[in-house]
Amino acid sequence: MTLPISRTAEQIAPFRVMKILGQAKTLEAEGKDIIHMEIGEPDFPSLACVHRAAMKAAEQGLTHYTPTLGLPSLRKKLAQFYRSFYHAKVAASNIIITPGSSSALQLVLTAILNPSDQVLMADPTYPCNRQFVELLHGKVKAVPVDADTQYQLSLKLLEQHWSKEIKAVMVASPANPTGTLIEQDALHDMAQFLSERDCYLIVDEIYQGLVYDRPAESILAQRDLPDNVIVINSFSKFFGMTGWRLGWTVAPTHLVDVLDRLGQNLYLSAPTPSQYGALAVLEEDALTELEQRRQIFQQRRDRLHSAMQQAGFNLKTLPQGAFYLYWDISQWSRDSEQFCADLLQATGVAITPGTDFGSSQGNHYVRLAYTSERIEEAVERIQAFVRTLHA
Amino acid sequence: MTLPISRTAEQIAPFRVMKILGQAKTLEAEGKDIIHMEIGEPDFPSLACVHRAAMKAAEQGLTHYTPTLGLPSLRKKLAQFYRSFYHAKVAASNIIITPGSSSALQLVLTAILNPSDQVLMADPTYPCNRQFVELLHGKVKAVPVDADTQYQLSLKLLEQHWSKEIKAVMVASPANPTGTLIEQDALHDMAQFLSERDCYLIVDEIYQGLVYDRPAESILAQRDLPDNVIVINSFSKFFGMTGWRLGWTVAPTHLVDVLDRLGQNLYLSAPTPSQYGALAVLEEDALTELEQRRQIFQQRRDRLHSAMQQAGFNLKTLPQGAFYLYWDISQWSRDSEQFCADLLQATGVAITPGTDFGSSQGNHYVRLAYTSERIEEAVERIQAFVRTLHA
Repeated sequence: MTLPISRTAEQIAPFRVMKILGQAKTLEAEGKDIIHMEIGEPDFPSLACVHRAAMKAAEQGLTHYTPTLGLPSLRKKLAQFYRSFYHAKVAASNIIITPGSSSALQLVLTAILNPSDQVLMADPTYPCNRQFVELLHGKVKAVPVDADTQYQLSLKLLEQHWSKEIKAVMVASPANPTGTLIEQDALHDMAQFLSERDCYLIVDEIYQGLVYDRPAESILAQRDLPDNVIVINSFSKFFGMTGWRLGWTVAPTHLVDVLDRLGQNLYLSAPTPSQYGALAVLEEDALTELEQRRQIFQQRRDRLHSAMQQAGFNLKTLPQGAFYLYWDISQWSRDSEQFCADLLQATGVAITPGTDFGSSQGNHYVRLAYTSERIEEAVERIQAFVRTLHA
Repeated sequence: MTLPISRTAEQIAPFRVMKILGQAKTLEAEGKDIIHMEIGEPDFPSLACVHRAAMKAAEQGLTHYTPTLGLPSLRKKLAQFYRSFYHAKVAASNIIITPGSSSALQLVLTAILNPSDQVLMADPTYPCNRQFVELLHGKVKAVPVDADTQYQLSLKLLEQHWSKEIKAVMVASPANPTGTLIEQDALHDMAQFLSERDCYLIVDEIYQGLVYDRPAESILAQRDLPDNVIVINSFSKFFGMTGWRLGWTVAPTHLVDVLDRLGQNLYLSAPTPSQYGALAVLEEDALTELEQRRQIFQQRRDRLHSAMQQAGFNLKTLPQGAFYLYWDISQWSRDSEQFCADLLQATGVAITPGTDFGSSQGNHYVRLAYTSERIEEAVERIQAFVRTLHA
């Protein structure tokens, strides 16, 4: 006899990116020069105004639990932010502050999924989406997507893959790992199609704000939005607050009480200092600074895209958001994990195998995060590395 | 057709304490004088050294994700703390930092429970214990306990209620809502009994440190501890860091990798500023300050116990830890929710109905939290209130 481990826990896949990160850090400790392009985290620290606001609140004794739905002032301020930045009418009462967007995803899926319910999502996608569904004993219906649809789901794909066991569809715009967007009118048609079938549409807007060549948008700006749309968002990416673990969801009114009760049990409340910090990051001055960071990411995207093209690498899309480039390496390798391990060992460039994001073509792709300034150097090293491989 | 809500979410009970808190705040806003004894949260703010340490780290740019298992320095420092304060040999590698002890509980139960597995716990108990098991589609086996066993499980009760479907037993020492302890030798016998049956013993030490009349202890100090013991702990109660949302678990070695993978998916990492703050709260000076707070809680317990006795109220136990008194009101009411609502309305004293903690005798009990200095005044108001009721 031995002490048991649950089946879901045994089956849960680790993030391969964490393995690469671990190997990269080991090499770094041995003195090797590493270029980090593996982690999905902005390299910038959080803004000084965040630190000051959190500290000021703490000094005033504001270190207790907040209401489970979040600080009323933060929910109100986010509603104003939606209005002024996205021309979206969102009621503060529909905004629920969570300890990171991971908790928001879990909260929402726990509220709507019964065991065996299906959730449709693109392959590739953010790995936690799959894991949360499986932890709830739901079933993932992964639809392989490629450059033809910008690696996104479409109304046509929903129609093709529809079945009544599907209780929710998950999309992301901008998406991880591809950096691609879904056009708002396409999103609207998908929401409408699903609404007619009593199916939720969960829209991951975690990389909202990190959009290039065009204005950032939200599905919440649509005027006749059906009540099956749930938005997930985060203070981690555009707002640069990763370590503060703060996210939010915008949920239809009929779910708010349920989410409140679930949140009371799952986490009680989001971190209080982070919530006071977030109040500061939504101020005008902070947003100006964040816009400058966005421009830096845009320049890096341009530099990476251009360096890759000059190296003769075939890129199927120009990513328009987030800070990722998804790259087809199949002419050199059909084993992206081995490719990334060898690349790291040979050149010190750390990138993420596509197998983190999907099983369909994951072995043919890698993800490069432009969260480092050493972009041209990284591409030169990659170019030298692939020359050593049989094409 | 309507948009679905999951069965578990529909069935999940809200915390009644949140309802009482809401009503108390409404009355307060109307100008009524409220004595808050409902919430399980120390009234003290977190220590200034916590704020300074979190701020200093943030100013140094330490605002990114930490490893999922937690900051190595914090895990190491907790191991030292166990050694110096509890004479417990705990390896840093077995300590896993979590975003609050709620996450620790969820993480651990997710790692070990399959659907339909049973978890045995006392009734009354901390409400989330039941909810987490049910969210995982496990089954709660609640064993009614009373003053005869200090409202705790015992080896005898385990023997009586044992069945092979039980995969974990949950105990707490000190316990919420009763403030009672389990003796370490009794805990050891329970751990041994369960170890022989390949069953985990989850020991909630969340109120560790808040122990009166005797030294605080940890099950981890036992020399021949079997590897079925999992400890849950928190920086919220003794360390006074509720809003910072930081807890930990000490898990047997065979679970650490699984918990790491689950944590990567469930929450990525605990809040970074909170982890740097926690490093400070484990320093000598901070611990001296926390010991003074513990003494204040002890004085309040004595004051509350003595005021209740002077009021002629029958108390079945002298609580030896946490900051709660569990009180049998059945001579006045068999509906603790109504009792608490009426008491609040009539006197402004906010306390928590026992129905939050169990179904067996929950309607005959209420919980008083001595998280207010206005103890004698509260008891006088309660005394005046019960005089108006038929005994």
